[in-house]
Amino acid sequence: MPYSPEDKKRVITRLSRIKGQAEALARAVEEGTDCSALLQQIAALRGAANGLMAEVLDSHLRELFGSSSNATRPAVIDPDAEIDALMKMLRTYLK
Amino acid sequence: MPYSPEDKKRVITRLSRIKGQAEALARAVEEGTDCSALLQQIAALRGAANGLMAEVLDSHLRELFGSSSNATRPAVIDPDAEIDALMKMLRTYLK
Amino acid sequence: MPYSPEDKKRVITRLSRIKGQAEALARAVEEGTDCSALLQQIAALRGAANGLMAEVLDSHLRELFGSSSNATRPAVIDPDAEIDALMKMLRTYLK
Amino acid sequence: MPYSPEDKKRVITRLSRIKGQAEALARAVEEGTDCSALLQQIAALRGAANGLMAEVLDSHLRELFGSSSNATRPAVIDPDAEIDALMKMLRTYLK
Repeated sequence: MPYSPEDKKRVITRLSRIKGQAEALARAVEEGTDCSALLQQIAALRGAANGLMAEVLDSHLRELFGSSSNATRPAVIDPDAEIDALMKMLRTYLK
Repeated sequence: MPYSPEDKKRVITRLSRIKGQAEALARAVEEGTDCSALLQQIAALRGAANGLMAEVLDSHLRELFGSSSNATRPAVIDPDAEIDALMKMLRTYLK
Repeated sequence: MPYSPEDKKRVITRLSRIKGQAEALARAVEEGTDCSALLQQIAALRGAANGLMAEVLDSHLRELFGSSSNATRPAVIDPDAEIDALMKMLRTYLK
Repeated sequence: MPYSPEDKKRVITRLSRIKGQAEALARAVEEGTDCSALLQQIAALRGAANGLMAEVLDSHLRELFGSSSNATRPAVIDPDAEIDALMKMLRTYLK
């Protein structure tokens, strides 16, 4: 299920930012940075993970069910199985 | 505000796991992995960030207010300012 | 966009449970119940709201895009507008 | 563990609002309101539950560890047990 090149680039950029945040946090811990500052950085890393999730979810929904994907979409997809998989993931957020 | 060596090691281990997850996700995107699988991996990365937050928050609360820290705690801390900072961070989770 | 009678009944049952939780919490506050116990009850109410969200989201996705709804679905729906609305709501969870 | 009268009033007001939201949602479901609108209302109810949690958590932390409560606080509280209970609840948010 290939992304568009632009989608891929955006997602890879987000992932390298998250990697950078994790590295910066590790340095901060080594240097004994104050917990309050660490907690803020961790909240920012979590926010980045949520932003990544929203981006991939958005393009996944459009790829599956959006109008523009009608031409490119494989002839038959199993919408119910796709919705099952989506809900299984979303329920981890809806606890 | 130094951590105990064990605390530091645990937090650093969690951070390198998150870094590894971000790298694995970047490879998966490059390889055009199916979105459903990506969404599960991103949810796992987010779970790791939440686990890290819980770990650091736990040791922060104990360091500030726990009984064991009485001896080691600096003479005067400003509990109200610490609670302000804590709540400011926690509200980002309680939206 | 009518629900099935069973869907409706389940959602209404969940809502009356949430209402009951709110009333029980109000009594507990009036009686000066300990904060720890209140926090647990509030977390349960939030969990119930999340469960309700998952239930309605699940039936909404199936109604819009599921195979079973092909026969009953209005001739033309605007999938992109529906995905926009869905993502707008989901982003409130993905912060 | 009595609240101040102002605290109590604020929390009770929040709870009656949540009750009102649940009742309004039940009416909306009965009337067959569109799912998108319902999802927005449920997200608002969840936001209200989160706001309530933040409010009670804030006053609980101040009551336990804040400077102003020094005079009124019972002679000996078990900070470690209180932190255990707090983290147990917070981990439900940090999943």
